[in-house]
Amino acid sequence: MAFDKPMIRDSEGFDWVVEQHSQFFMIGYRVKKHLFSGQSDFQKVDVYETEGHGKLLMNDNLAMVSDRDEYIYHEMMAHIPLFTHPHPKRVLVIGGGDGGTAREVLRHTSVESVRMVEIDKMVVDASKEFIPVTASCLSDERITVDINDAVKFVAETNEKFDVVMVDSTDPIGPATPLFGIDFYKNIYKILEDDGVVVSQGESPFYEQPMQVKLMSIVSELFPITSLYNFTNLTYPGGLWSFTFASKKFHPLKDFNRERVLESGIDFRYYNEDLHSACFALPSFMRNSLRSYIKL
Amino acid sequence: MAFDKPMIRDSEGFDWVVEQHSQFFMIGYRVKKHLFSGQSDFQKVDVYETEGHGKLLMNDNLAMVSDRDEYIYHEMMAHIPLFTHPHPKRVLVIGGGDGGTAREVLRHTSVESVRMVEIDKMVVDASKEFIPVTASCLSDERITVDINDAVKFVAETNEKFDVVMVDSTDPIGPATPLFGIDFYKNIYKILEDDGVVVSQGESPFYEQPMQVKLMSIVSELFPITSLYNFTNLTYPGGLWSFTFASKKFHPLKDFNRERVLESGIDFRYYNEDLHSACFALPSFMRNSLRSYIKL
Repeated sequence: MAFDKPMIRDSEGFDWVVEQHSQFFMIGYRVKKHLFSGQSDFQKVDVYETEGHGKLLMNDNLAMVSDRDEYIYHEMMAHIPLFTHPHPKRVLVIGGGDGGTAREVLRHTSVESVRMVEIDKMVVDASKEFIPVTASCLSDERITVDINDAVKFVAETNEKFDVVMVDSTDPIGPATPLFGIDFYKNIYKILEDDGVVVSQGESPFYEQPMQVKLMSIVSELFPITSLYNFTNLTYPGGLWSFTFASKKFHPLKDFNRERVLESGIDFRYYNEDLHSACFALPSFMRNSLRSYIKL
Repeated sequence: MAFDKPMIRDSEGFDWVVEQHSQFFMIGYRVKKHLFSGQSDFQKVDVYETEGHGKLLMNDNLAMVSDRDEYIYHEMMAHIPLFTHPHPKRVLVIGGGDGGTAREVLRHTSVESVRMVEIDKMVVDASKEFIPVTASCLSDERITVDINDAVKFVAETNEKFDVVMVDSTDPIGPATPLFGIDFYKNIYKILEDDGVVVSQGESPFYEQPMQVKLMSIVSELFPITSLYNFTNLTYPGGLWSFTFASKKFHPLKDFNRERVLESGIDFRYYNEDLHSACFALPSFMRNSLRSYIKL
Protein backbone atom coordinates (compact mmCIF):
# COMPACT_ATOMS: atom_id res chain seq x y z
CA MET A 1 0.00 0.00 0.00
CA ALA A 2 1.09 3.54 -0.65
CA PHE A 3 0.85 4.43 3.02
CA ASP A 4 2.34 1.63 5.09
CA LYS A 5 0.28 2.48 8.17
CA PRO A 6 -3.48 3.01 8.31
CA MET A 7 -3.04 6.38 10.04
CA ILE A 8 -1.15 9.48 9.01
CA ARG A 9 -0.48 12.58 11.08
CA ASP A 10 -1.24 16.09 9.85
CA SER A 11 0.66 19.34 10.35
CA GLU A 12 -1.27 20.11 13.52
CA GLY A 13 -0.58 16.73 15.09
CA PHE A 14 -3.97 15.15 14.41
CA ASP A 15 -4.22 11.56 13.19
CA TRP A 16 -6.22 10.57 10.12
CA VAL A 17 -7.24 7.04 9.20
CA VAL A 18 -6.80 6.53 5.49
CA GLU A 19 -8.58 4.11 3.16
CA GLN A 20 -6.62 3.45 -0.03
CA HIS A 21 -7.81 2.23 -3.42
CA SER A 22 -6.01 0.92 -6.44
CA GLN A 23 -2.87 2.80 -5.45
CA PHE A 24 -4.29 6.07 -6.73
CA PHE A 25 -7.17 7.24 -4.58
CA MET A 26 -7.75 7.64 -0.87
CA ILE A 27 -10.32 8.84 1.63
CA GLY A 28 -9.27 10.08 5.06
CA TYR A 29 -11.15 10.64 8.31
CA ARG A 30 -9.81 12.60 11.24
CA VAL A 31 -9.60 10.36 14.27
CA LYS A 32 -10.50 11.36 17.81
CA LYS A 33 -9.79 7.94 19.29
CA HIS A 34 -8.87 4.48 18.06
CA LEU A 35 -11.42 2.52 20.08
CA PHE A 36 -10.69 -1.05 19.06
CA SER A 37 -8.26 -3.07 16.99
CA GLY A 38 -8.31 -6.83 16.62
CA GLN A 39 -7.25 -9.58 14.25
CA SER A 40 -9.87 -12.30 13.84
CA ASP A 41 -9.46 -15.55 11.93
CA PHE A 42 -10.84 -13.72 8.90
CA GLN A 43 -9.79 -10.10 8.89
CA LYS A 44 -8.48 -7.09 10.78
CA VAL A 45 -11.27 -5.28 12.61
CA ASP A 46 -10.95 -1.66 13.79
CA VAL A 47 -13.34 0.85 15.29
CA TYR A 48 -12.46 4.55 15.29
CA GLU A 49 -14.19 7.50 16.86
CA THR A 50 -13.91 10.10 14.10
CA GLU A 51 -14.28 13.85 14.18
CA GLY A 52 -17.07 14.20 11.62
CA HIS A 53 -18.53 10.78 10.92
CA GLY A 54 -19.00 9.33 14.41
CA LYS A 55 -17.95 5.75 14.97
CA LEU A 56 -16.31 4.11 11.98
CA LEU A 57 -15.98 0.32 11.58
CA MET A 58 -13.24 -0.83 9.23
CA ASN A 59 -12.49 -4.38 8.11
CA ASP A 60 -9.01 -4.79 6.62
CA ASN A 61 -8.76 -0.98 6.55
CA LEU A 62 -11.88 -0.56 4.39
CA ALA A 63 -14.80 1.47 5.76
CA MET A 64 -17.84 -0.70 6.48
CA VAL A 65 -20.12 1.43 8.64
CA SER A 66 -20.07 4.98 9.97
CA ASP A 67 -22.60 6.49 12.35
CA ARG A 68 -23.10 9.37 9.96
CA ASP A 69 -24.23 7.51 6.86
CA GLU A 70 -24.94 3.89 7.78
CA TYR A 71 -28.69 4.42 7.43
CA ILE A 72 -28.36 4.81 3.67
CA TYR A 73 -26.85 1.43 2.91
CA HIS A 74 -29.04 -0.37 5.43
CA GLU A 75 -32.33 1.26 4.39
CA MET A 76 -31.64 0.61 0.71
CA MET A 77 -30.59 -3.00 1.26
CA ALA A 78 -33.68 -3.81 3.33
CA HIS A 79 -36.61 -1.76 2.08
CA ILE A 80 -36.29 -2.34 -1.67
CA PRO A 81 -36.84 -6.11 -1.41
CA LEU A 82 -39.22 -5.88 1.55
CA PHE A 83 -41.50 -3.42 -0.27
CA THR A 84 -41.22 -5.47 -3.48
CA HIS A 85 -42.26 -8.75 -1.84
CA PRO A 86 -45.87 -8.14 -0.75
CA HIS A 87 -45.76 -10.21 2.47
CA PRO A 88 -42.22 -11.03 3.61
CA LYS A 89 -42.15 -13.16 6.75
CA ARG A 90 -38.83 -15.00 6.91
CA VAL A 91 -35.64 -13.08 6.09
CA LEU A 92 -32.06 -14.30 5.89
CA VAL A 93 -29.22 -11.79 6.29
CA ILE A 94 -25.81 -13.08 5.21
CA GLY A 95 -22.99 -11.12 6.77
CA GLY A 96 -24.24 -7.84 8.19
CA GLY A 97 -22.58 -8.47 11.54
CA ASP A 98 -22.91 -4.82 12.54
CA GLY A 99 -26.69 -5.30 12.77
CA GLY A 100 -27.74 -2.36 10.60
CA THR A 101 -29.50 -4.40 7.92
CA ALA A 102 -31.33 -6.49 10.52
CA ARG A 103 -32.45 -3.29 12.25
CA GLU A 104 -34.16 -2.07 9.08
CA VAL A 105 -35.71 -5.50 8.41
CA LEU A 106 -37.24 -5.50 11.89
CA ARG A 107 -39.10 -2.28 11.14
CA HIS A 108 -41.40 -4.37 8.94
CA THR A 109 -44.17 -5.71 11.12
CA SER A 110 -44.89 -8.52 8.64
CA VAL A 111 -41.46 -10.03 9.31
CA GLU A 112 -41.69 -12.89 11.79
CA SER A 113 -38.07 -14.04 11.87
CA VAL A 114 -34.63 -12.85 10.81
CA ARG A 115 -31.77 -15.28 10.62
CA MET A 116 -28.35 -13.63 10.47
CA VAL A 117 -25.38 -15.74 9.40
CA GLU A 118 -22.14 -13.89 10.05
CA ILE A 119 -18.79 -15.62 9.81
CA ASP A 120 -16.86 -13.25 12.08
CA LYS A 121 -17.84 -13.06 15.74
CA MET A 122 -15.39 -10.22 16.26
CA VAL A 123 -17.45 -7.94 13.97
CA VAL A 124 -20.61 -8.69 15.96
CA ASP A 125 -18.89 -8.21 19.32
CA ALA A 126 -17.11 -4.99 18.32
CA SER A 127 -20.37 -3.59 16.92
CA LYS A 128 -22.28 -4.50 20.07
CA GLU A 129 -19.68 -2.76 22.21
CA PHE A 130 -18.98 0.34 20.11
CA ILE A 131 -21.71 0.87 17.48
CA PRO A 132 -25.07 0.63 19.26
CA VAL A 133 -26.83 2.57 16.50
CA THR A 134 -26.66 -0.56 14.33
CA ALA A 135 -26.07 -3.37 16.82
CA SER A 136 -28.63 -2.69 19.53
CA CYS A 137 -31.34 -4.44 17.49
CA LEU A 138 -29.46 -7.73 17.77
CA SER A 139 -31.17 -8.48 21.07
CA ASP A 140 -34.60 -8.44 19.38
CA GLU A 141 -36.43 -11.71 19.94
CA ARG A 142 -37.21 -12.11 16.24
CA ILE A 143 -33.46 -12.38 15.41
CA THR A 144 -31.27 -15.48 15.51
CA VAL A 145 -27.57 -14.73 15.11
CA ASP A 146 -25.53 -17.68 13.77
CA ILE A 147 -21.79 -17.33 13.82
CA ASN A 148 -21.26 -19.56 10.85
CA ASP A 149 -19.92 -19.78 7.32
CA ALA A 150 -22.78 -18.68 5.05
CA VAL A 151 -21.48 -20.79 2.17
CA LYS A 152 -21.90 -23.87 4.33
CA PHE A 153 -25.21 -22.64 5.75
CA VAL A 154 -26.94 -22.13 2.40
CA ALA A 155 -25.64 -25.49 1.15
CA GLU A 156 -26.93 -27.44 4.14
CA THR A 157 -30.03 -25.73 5.54
CA ASN A 158 -33.55 -27.01 5.00
CA GLU A 159 -35.08 -23.66 5.93
CA LYS A 160 -36.78 -21.54 3.29
CA PHE A 161 -36.84 -17.75 3.11
CA ASP A 162 -38.94 -15.07 1.47
CA VAL A 163 -36.08 -12.61 1.18
CA VAL A 164 -32.30 -13.05 1.35
CA MET A 165 -29.92 -10.11 1.81
CA VAL A 166 -26.25 -10.71 1.06
CA ASP A 167 -24.67 -7.98 3.16
CA SER A 168 -21.09 -8.92 2.42
CA THR A 169 -17.75 -7.19 2.41
CA ASP A 170 -15.78 -6.88 -0.82
CA PRO A 171 -14.73 -10.03 -2.68
CA ILE A 172 -11.40 -10.30 -0.90
CA GLY A 173 -10.76 -12.42 2.16
CA PRO A 174 -13.71 -14.18 3.78
CA ALA A 175 -16.35 -12.88 1.36
CA THR A 176 -14.77 -14.22 -1.85
CA PRO A 177 -17.05 -17.31 -2.23
CA LEU A 178 -20.11 -15.06 -1.82
CA PHE A 179 -19.40 -13.78 -5.32
CA GLY A 180 -19.60 -17.22 -7.02
CA ILE A 181 -22.29 -19.17 -8.90
CA ASP A 182 -22.43 -22.13 -6.50
CA PHE A 183 -23.38 -19.82 -3.70
CA TYR A 184 -26.20 -18.29 -5.73
CA LYS A 185 -27.49 -21.71 -6.81
CA ASN A 186 -27.95 -22.47 -3.13
CA ILE A 187 -29.56 -19.08 -2.51
CA TYR A 188 -32.03 -19.92 -5.27
CA LYS A 189 -32.73 -23.28 -3.62
CA ILE A 190 -33.46 -21.85 -0.16
CA LEU A 191 -35.73 -19.10 -1.49
CA GLU A 192 -39.47 -19.67 -1.62
CA ASP A 193 -41.01 -19.80 -5.10
CA ASP A 194 -41.75 -16.09 -4.89
CA GLY A 195 -38.47 -15.15 -3.15
CA VAL A 196 -36.22 -12.14 -3.65
CA VAL A 197 -32.48 -11.77 -3.08
CA VAL A 198 -30.44 -8.56 -2.98
CA SER A 199 -26.66 -8.37 -2.65
CA GLN A 200 -24.01 -5.77 -1.99
CA GLY A 201 -23.11 -5.00 -5.57
CA GLU A 202 -19.85 -3.01 -5.53
CA SER A 203 -18.82 0.27 -7.14
CA PRO A 204 -20.10 1.12 -10.63
CA PHE A 205 -17.12 3.41 -11.14
CA TYR A 206 -14.23 1.36 -9.79
CA GLU A 207 -15.42 -2.28 -9.87
CA GLN A 208 -17.35 -2.67 -13.10
CA PRO A 209 -15.91 -6.14 -13.92
CA MET A 210 -17.16 -7.43 -10.56
CA GLN A 211 -20.61 -5.95 -11.23
CA VAL A 212 -20.69 -7.69 -14.59
CA LYS A 213 -19.66 -10.98 -12.98
CA LEU A 214 -22.31 -10.79 -10.24
CA MET A 215 -25.05 -9.80 -12.67
CA SER A 216 -24.11 -12.55 -15.11
CA ILE A 217 -24.52 -15.07 -12.26
CA VAL A 218 -27.89 -13.89 -10.97
CA SER A 219 -29.33 -13.33 -14.44
CA GLU A 220 -28.49 -16.93 -15.32
CA LEU A 221 -30.58 -18.18 -12.40
CA PHE A 222 -33.45 -15.70 -11.91
CA PRO A 223 -36.13 -14.44 -14.32
CA ILE A 224 -36.16 -10.86 -12.97
CA THR A 225 -32.80 -9.15 -12.36
CA SER A 226 -31.35 -5.66 -12.16
CA LEU A 227 -29.16 -3.36 -10.12
CA TYR A 228 -30.20 -0.39 -8.08
CA ASN A 229 -28.04 2.45 -6.80
CA PHE A 230 -27.57 4.58 -3.75
CA THR A 231 -24.96 7.13 -2.69
CA ASN A 232 -23.20 7.17 0.64
CA LEU A 233 -20.25 8.98 2.16
CA THR A 234 -17.81 6.25 3.05
CA TYR A 235 -17.65 3.93 0.03
CA PRO A 236 -15.14 5.07 -2.59
CA GLY A 237 -16.75 7.02 -5.39
CA GLY A 238 -19.97 7.63 -3.46
CA LEU A 239 -22.19 5.75 -5.91
CA TRP A 240 -22.76 2.11 -5.01
CA SER A 241 -25.02 -0.70 -6.19
CA PHE A 242 -27.10 -3.57 -4.94
CA THR A 243 -27.94 -6.44 -7.26
CA PHE A 244 -31.61 -7.43 -7.28
CA ALA A 245 -32.91 -10.87 -8.31
CA SER A 246 -36.45 -12.16 -7.99
CA LYS A 247 -38.33 -15.35 -8.83
CA LYS A 248 -41.73 -13.72 -9.24
CA PHE A 249 -42.23 -10.16 -8.01
CA HIS A 250 -41.16 -7.22 -10.17
CA PRO A 251 -39.59 -4.32 -8.21
CA LEU A 252 -41.40 -1.68 -10.28
CA LYS A 253 -44.57 -3.29 -11.64
CA ASP A 254 -45.49 -5.05 -8.38
CA PHE A 255 -44.55 -2.09 -6.20
CA ASN A 256 -47.32 -0.52 -4.13
CA ARG A 257 -46.54 3.06 -3.06
CA GLU A 258 -49.39 3.05 -0.58
CA ARG A 259 -47.78 0.25 1.41
CA VAL A 260 -44.71 2.46 1.98
CA LEU A 261 -46.81 5.44 3.02
CA GLU A 262 -48.97 3.31 5.30
CA SER A 263 -45.99 1.56 6.94
CA GLY A 264 -45.42 4.56 9.18
CA ILE A 265 -41.65 3.96 8.99
CA ASP A 266 -39.67 7.17 9.39
CA PHE A 267 -37.10 6.77 6.60
CA ARG A 268 -34.03 8.96 6.35
CA TYR A 269 -33.03 7.99 2.78
CA TYR A 270 -35.48 5.50 1.19
CA ASN A 271 -38.97 6.61 0.17
CA GLU A 272 -41.75 5.71 -2.26
CA ASP A 273 -40.25 7.84 -5.06
CA LEU A 274 -36.70 6.56 -4.65
CA HIS A 275 -37.95 2.97 -4.70
CA SER A 276 -38.38 3.17 -8.46
CA ALA A 277 -35.91 5.96 -9.21
CA CYS A 278 -32.94 4.00 -7.86
CA PHE A 279 -33.38 1.45 -10.67
CA ALA A 280 -32.73 4.18 -13.29
CA LEU A 281 -29.07 3.56 -14.09
CA PRO A 282 -26.57 6.01 -15.58
CA SER A 283 -25.85 5.33 -19.24
CA PHE A 284 -22.39 3.91 -18.62
CA MET A 285 -23.90 1.25 -16.32
CA ARG A 286 -26.85 0.53 -18.58
CA ASN A 287 -24.51 0.03 -21.52
CA SER A 288 -22.13 -2.35 -19.80
CA LEU A 289 -24.82 -4.38 -18.02
CA ARG A 290 -27.58 -4.32 -20.61
CA SER A 291 -27.56 -8.05 -21.34
CA TYR A 292 -27.98 -8.96 -17.66
CA ILE A 293 -30.81 -6.59 -16.79
CA LYS A 294 -34.17 -8.30 -17.02
CA LEU A 295 -36.88 -5.92 -15.92
CA MET B 1 -5.98 23.54 7.31
CA ALA B 2 -5.00 20.23 8.82
CA PHE B 3 -2.34 19.65 6.20
CA ASP B 4 -0.42 22.84 5.61
CA LYS B 5 0.58 21.86 2.07
CA PRO B 6 -1.75 20.62 -0.68
CA MET B 7 0.48 17.58 -1.27
CA ILE B 8 1.62 14.83 1.08
CA ARG B 9 4.18 12.11 0.39
CA ASP B 10 3.51 8.40 0.99
CA SER B 11 5.79 5.68 2.27
CA GLU B 12 6.93 4.80 -1.24
CA GLY B 13 7.82 8.40 -2.12
CA PHE B 14 4.76 9.21 -4.22
CA ASP B 15 2.99 12.55 -3.86
CA TRP B 16 -0.74 12.83 -3.24
CA VAL B 17 -2.78 16.00 -3.64
CA VAL B 18 -5.25 16.27 -0.81
CA GLU B 19 -8.59 18.09 -0.70
CA GLN B 20 -9.71 18.82 2.86
CA HIS B 21 -13.18 19.49 4.24
CA SER B 22 -14.41 20.88 7.50
CA GLN B 23 -11.22 19.75 9.22
CA PHE B 24 -12.45 16.17 9.37
CA PHE B 25 -12.58 14.65 5.94
CA MET B 26 -10.22 14.45 2.99
CA ILE B 27 -9.90 12.98 -0.48
CA GLY B 28 -6.49 12.28 -2.00
CA TYR B 29 -5.30 11.64 -5.53
CA ARG B 30 -1.91 10.23 -6.43
CA VAL B 31 -0.05 12.73 -8.57
CA LYS B 32 2.09 11.87 -11.57
CA LYS B 33 2.91 15.49 -12.37
CA HIS B 34 1.97 18.95 -11.16
CA LEU B 35 1.33 20.53 -14.56
CA PHE B 36 0.35 24.07 -13.62
CA SER B 37 0.09 26.36 -10.64
CA GLY B 38 -0.97 29.98 -10.75
CA GLN B 39 -2.51 32.65 -8.56
CA SER B 40 -5.07 34.76 -10.38
CA ASP B 41 -6.83 37.86 -9.05
CA PHE B 42 -9.56 35.52 -7.80
CA GLN B 43 -8.14 32.18 -6.73
CA LYS B 44 -5.31 29.69 -6.84
CA VAL B 45 -5.50 27.52 -9.96
CA ASP B 46 -3.72 24.15 -10.23
CA VAL B 47 -3.72 21.35 -12.76
CA TYR B 48 -2.39 17.92 -11.81
CA GLU B 49 -1.83 14.84 -13.90
CA THR B 50 -3.10 12.12 -11.56
CA GLU B 51 -2.53 8.38 -11.58
CA GLY B 52 -6.14 7.24 -11.77
CA HIS B 53 -8.31 10.24 -12.63
CA GLY B 54 -6.42 11.85 -15.50
CA LYS B 55 -6.04 15.62 -15.43
CA LEU B 56 -7.42 17.29 -12.32
CA LEU B 57 -8.25 21.02 -12.15
CA MET B 58 -8.33 22.49 -8.65
CA ASN B 59 -9.35 26.01 -7.64
CA ASP B 60 -8.19 26.98 -4.16
CA ASN B 61 -7.30 23.29 -3.60
CA LEU B 62 -10.85 22.09 -4.31
CA ALA B 63 -11.42 19.64 -7.18
CA MET B 64 -13.35 21.21 -10.06
CA VAL B 65 -12.89 18.87 -12.99
CA SER B 66 -11.20 15.52 -13.57
CA ASP B 67 -10.86 13.74 -16.90
CA ARG B 68 -12.33 10.61 -15.36
CA ASP B 69 -15.68 11.92 -14.19
CA GLU B 70 -16.23 15.41 -15.65
CA TYR B 71 -18.86 14.12 -18.07
CA ILE B 72 -21.27 13.46 -15.20
CA TYR B 73 -21.49 17.01 -13.87
CA HIS B 74 -21.51 18.54 -17.34
CA GLU B 75 -24.11 16.22 -18.85
CA MET B 76 -26.42 16.67 -15.87
CA MET B 77 -26.06 20.44 -15.82
CA ALA B 78 -26.79 20.80 -19.53
CA HIS B 79 -29.24 18.10 -20.59
CA ILE B 80 -31.83 18.40 -17.82
CA PRO B 81 -32.77 22.01 -18.72
CA LEU B 82 -32.19 21.56 -22.45
CA PHE B 83 -34.52 18.55 -22.61
CA THR B 84 -37.04 20.31 -20.38
CA HIS B 85 -37.21 23.45 -22.54
CA PRO B 86 -38.70 22.22 -25.84
CA HIS B 87 -36.75 24.55 -28.16
CA PRO B 88 -33.74 26.17 -26.47
CA LYS B 89 -31.86 28.54 -28.78
CA ARG B 90 -29.91 31.01 -26.65
CA VAL B 91 -27.98 29.70 -23.64
CA LEU B 92 -25.98 31.60 -21.02
CA VAL B 93 -23.30 29.74 -19.05
CA ILE B 94 -22.07 31.59 -15.96
CA GLY B 95 -18.66 30.38 -14.86
CA GLY B 96 -17.81 27.04 -16.44
CA GLY B 97 -14.42 28.27 -17.59
CA ASP B 98 -13.19 24.74 -18.22
CA GLY B 99 -15.64 24.48 -21.15
CA GLY B 100 -17.33 21.20 -20.14
CA THR B 101 -20.82 22.60 -19.74
CA ALA B 102 -20.59 24.50 -23.03
CA ARG B 103 -19.45 21.30 -24.76
CA GLU B 104 -22.64 19.51 -23.69
CA VAL B 105 -24.82 22.49 -24.64
CA LEU B 106 -23.35 22.48 -28.13
CA ARG B 107 -24.49 18.89 -28.68
CA HIS B 108 -28.02 20.29 -28.98
CA THR B 109 -28.56 21.24 -32.60
CA SER B 110 -31.39 23.62 -31.64
CA VAL B 111 -28.93 25.83 -29.78
CA GLU B 112 -27.88 28.79 -31.89
CA SER B 113 -25.62 30.64 -29.44
CA VAL B 114 -23.87 30.08 -26.14
CA ARG B 115 -22.58 33.01 -24.15
CA MET B 116 -20.10 32.07 -21.46
CA VAL B 117 -19.30 34.63 -18.77
CA GLU B 118 -16.31 33.51 -16.73
CA ILE B 119 -14.57 35.86 -14.30
CA ASP B 120 -11.19 34.15 -14.28
CA LYS B 121 -9.18 34.08 -17.50
CA MET B 122 -6.60 31.84 -15.84
CA VAL B 123 -9.16 29.01 -15.55
CA VAL B 124 -9.98 29.27 -19.26
CA ASP B 125 -6.34 29.44 -20.30
CA ALA B 126 -5.23 26.56 -18.06
CA SER B 127 -8.11 24.43 -19.31
CA LYS B 128 -7.30 25.21 -22.94
CA GLU B 129 -3.71 24.21 -22.40
CA PHE B 130 -4.11 21.15 -20.20
CA ILE B 131 -7.71 19.85 -20.31
CA PRO B 132 -8.72 19.56 -23.96
CA VAL B 133 -11.50 17.08 -23.15
CA THR B 134 -13.55 19.98 -21.79
CA ALA B 135 -11.93 23.05 -23.32
CA SER B 136 -11.56 22.12 -26.97
CA CYS B 137 -15.17 23.11 -27.66
CA LEU B 138 -14.38 26.72 -26.77
CA SER B 139 -13.31 27.42 -30.36
CA ASP B 140 -16.81 26.53 -31.64
CA GLU B 141 -18.27 29.41 -33.64
CA ARG B 142 -21.54 29.32 -31.68
CA ILE B 143 -19.70 30.26 -28.43
CA THR B 144 -18.79 33.72 -27.19
CA VAL B 145 -16.46 33.70 -24.19
CA ASP B 146 -16.66 36.88 -22.07
CA ILE B 147 -14.04 37.28 -19.37
CA ASN B 148 -16.28 39.32 -17.14
CA ASP B 149 -17.97 39.49 -13.76
CA ALA B 150 -21.28 37.66 -14.16
CA VAL B 151 -22.90 39.72 -11.41
CA LYS B 152 -22.24 42.82 -13.48
CA PHE B 153 -23.19 41.10 -16.73
CA VAL B 154 -26.64 39.95 -15.62
CA ALA B 155 -27.35 43.39 -14.11
CA GLU B 156 -26.45 45.28 -17.27
CA THR B 157 -27.17 43.11 -20.31
CA ASN B 158 -30.16 43.61 -22.58
CA GLU B 159 -29.84 40.11 -24.03
CA LYS B 160 -32.45 37.48 -23.25
CA PHE B 161 -31.85 33.76 -22.83
CA ASP B 162 -33.90 30.58 -22.98
CA VAL B 163 -31.70 28.73 -20.52
CA VAL B 164 -29.16 29.94 -17.96
CA MET B 165 -26.66 27.58 -16.30
CA VAL B 166 -24.87 28.83 -13.21
CA ASP B 167 -21.77 26.66 -13.30
CA SER B 168 -20.10 28.23 -10.30
CA THR B 169 -17.53 27.21 -7.73
CA ASP B 170 -18.48 27.02 -4.06
CA PRO B 171 -19.75 30.15 -2.30
CA ILE B 172 -16.32 31.24 -1.16
CA GLY B 173 -14.09 33.70 -2.99
CA PRO B 174 -15.27 34.96 -6.39
CA ALA B 175 -18.51 32.95 -6.49
CA THR B 176 -20.02 34.32 -3.27
CA PRO B 177 -22.43 36.84 -4.90
CA LEU B 178 -23.72 34.07 -7.18
CA PHE B 179 -25.52 32.66 -4.16
CA GLY B 180 -27.56 35.81 -3.42
CA ILE B 181 -31.08 37.01 -4.21
CA ASP B 182 -30.05 40.09 -6.22
CA PHE B 183 -28.20 37.88 -8.65
CA TYR B 184 -31.24 35.65 -9.14
CA LYS B 185 -33.54 38.63 -9.63
CA ASN B 186 -31.35 39.60 -12.56
CA ILE B 187 -31.32 36.03 -13.86
CA TYR B 188 -35.11 36.11 -13.79
CA LYS B 189 -35.06 39.38 -15.72
CA ILE B 190 -32.78 38.15 -18.51
CA LEU B 191 -34.69 34.90 -18.99
CA GLU B 192 -37.40 34.69 -21.64
CA ASP B 193 -40.95 34.21 -20.37
CA ASP B 194 -40.53 30.45 -20.72
CA GLY B 195 -36.93 30.37 -19.48
CA VAL B 196 -35.19 27.84 -17.25
CA VAL B 197 -32.21 28.27 -14.91
CA VAL B 198 -30.13 25.55 -13.25
CA SER B 199 -27.33 26.15 -10.75
CA GLN B 200 -24.57 24.21 -9.09
CA GLY B 201 -26.40 23.30 -5.89
CA GLU B 202 -23.78 22.03 -3.41
CA SER B 203 -23.60 18.90 -1.28
CA PRO B 204 -26.79 17.50 0.28
CA PHE B 205 -24.72 15.82 2.98
CA TYR B 206 -22.24 18.52 3.94
CA GLU B 207 -23.81 21.81 2.81
CA GLN B 208 -27.49 21.54 3.63
CA PRO B 209 -27.82 25.13 4.94
CA MET B 210 -26.50 26.43 1.60
CA GLN B 211 -28.98 24.25 -0.29
CA VAL B 212 -31.80 25.64 1.83
CA LYS B 213 -30.62 29.19 1.18
CA LEU B 214 -30.38 28.72 -2.60
CA MET B 215 -33.75 26.98 -2.80
CA SER B 216 -35.42 29.65 -0.69
CA ILE B 217 -34.15 32.28 -3.16
CA VAL B 218 -35.24 30.57 -6.37
CA SER B 219 -38.58 29.42 -4.97
CA GLU B 220 -39.39 33.03 -4.07
CA LEU B 221 -38.92 34.09 -7.69
CA PHE B 222 -39.97 31.13 -9.87
CA PRO B 223 -43.26 29.16 -10.03
CA ILE B 224 -41.58 25.77 -10.68
CA THR B 225 -38.57 24.84 -8.52
CA SER B 226 -36.76 21.74 -7.32
CA LEU B 227 -33.37 20.12 -6.96
CA TYR B 228 -31.99 17.17 -8.85
CA ASN B 229 -29.07 14.95 -7.94
CA PHE B 230 -26.13 13.22 -9.52
CA THR B 231 -23.12 11.35 -8.16
CA ASN B 232 -19.54 11.93 -9.20
CA LEU B 233 -16.13 10.90 -7.95
CA THR B 234 -14.43 14.13 -7.07
CA TYR B 235 -16.94 16.16 -5.07
CA PRO B 236 -16.92 15.34 -1.37
CA GLY B 237 -19.61 12.86 -0.43
CA GLY B 238 -20.24 11.79 -4.03
CA LEU B 239 -23.86 12.97 -4.07
CA TRP B 240 -24.33 16.49 -5.40
CA SER B 241 -27.25 18.68 -6.47
CA PHE B 242 -28.32 21.18 -9.07
CA THR B 243 -31.11 23.60 -8.32
CA PHE B 244 -33.77 23.83 -11.03
CA ALA B 245 -36.07 26.84 -11.55
CA SER B 246 -38.45 27.43 -14.43
CA LYS B 247 -40.96 30.08 -15.47
CA LYS B 248 -43.20 27.76 -17.49
CA PHE B 249 -41.92 24.30 -18.40
CA HIS B 250 -42.17 21.46 -15.90
CA PRO B 251 -39.14 19.13 -15.86
CA LEU B 252 -41.29 16.00 -15.49
CA LYS B 253 -44.69 16.83 -16.98
CA ASP B 254 -43.33 18.64 -20.03
CA PHE B 255 -40.54 16.14 -20.60
CA ASN B 256 -40.59 14.22 -23.88
CA ARG B 257 -38.58 10.98 -23.75
CA GLU B 258 -38.70 10.64 -27.50
CA ARG B 259 -36.75 13.85 -27.97
CA VAL B 260 -33.86 12.37 -25.98
CA LEU B 261 -33.91 9.13 -27.94
CA GLU B 262 -34.13 10.97 -31.25
CA SER B 263 -31.33 13.41 -30.38
CA GLY B 264 -28.72 10.80 -31.28
CA ILE B 265 -26.47 12.10 -28.49
CA ASP B 266 -24.23 9.40 -27.06
CA PHE B 267 -24.59 10.08 -23.34
CA ARG B 268 -22.29 8.52 -20.77
CA TYR B 269 -24.40 9.36 -17.67
CA TYR B 270 -27.66 11.15 -18.54
CA ASN B 271 -30.50 9.29 -20.23
CA GLU B 272 -34.28 9.41 -20.63
CA ASP B 273 -34.86 7.38 -17.44
CA LEU B 274 -32.45 9.39 -15.28
CA HIS B 275 -34.06 12.63 -16.46
CA SER B 276 -37.00 12.03 -14.15
CA ALA B 277 -35.33 9.73 -11.61
CA CYS B 278 -32.78 12.36 -10.60
CA PHE B 279 -35.60 14.51 -9.18
CA ALA B 280 -36.51 11.76 -6.68
CA LEU B 281 -34.78 13.03 -3.54
CA PRO B 282 -33.68 11.01 -0.52
CA SER B 283 -35.96 11.50 2.47
CA PHE B 284 -33.50 13.65 4.40
CA MET B 285 -33.39 16.13 1.50
CA ARG B 286 -37.12 16.03 0.87
CA ASN B 287 -37.77 16.73 4.54
CA SER B 288 -35.42 19.69 4.86
CA LEU B 289 -36.35 21.27 1.52
CA ARG B 290 -40.04 20.45 1.34
CA SER B 291 -41.30 24.02 1.53
CA TYR B 292 -39.11 25.15 -1.38
CA ILE B 293 -39.91 22.35 -3.82
CA LYS B 294 -42.66 23.35 -6.23
CA LEU B 295 -43.21 20.54 -8.73
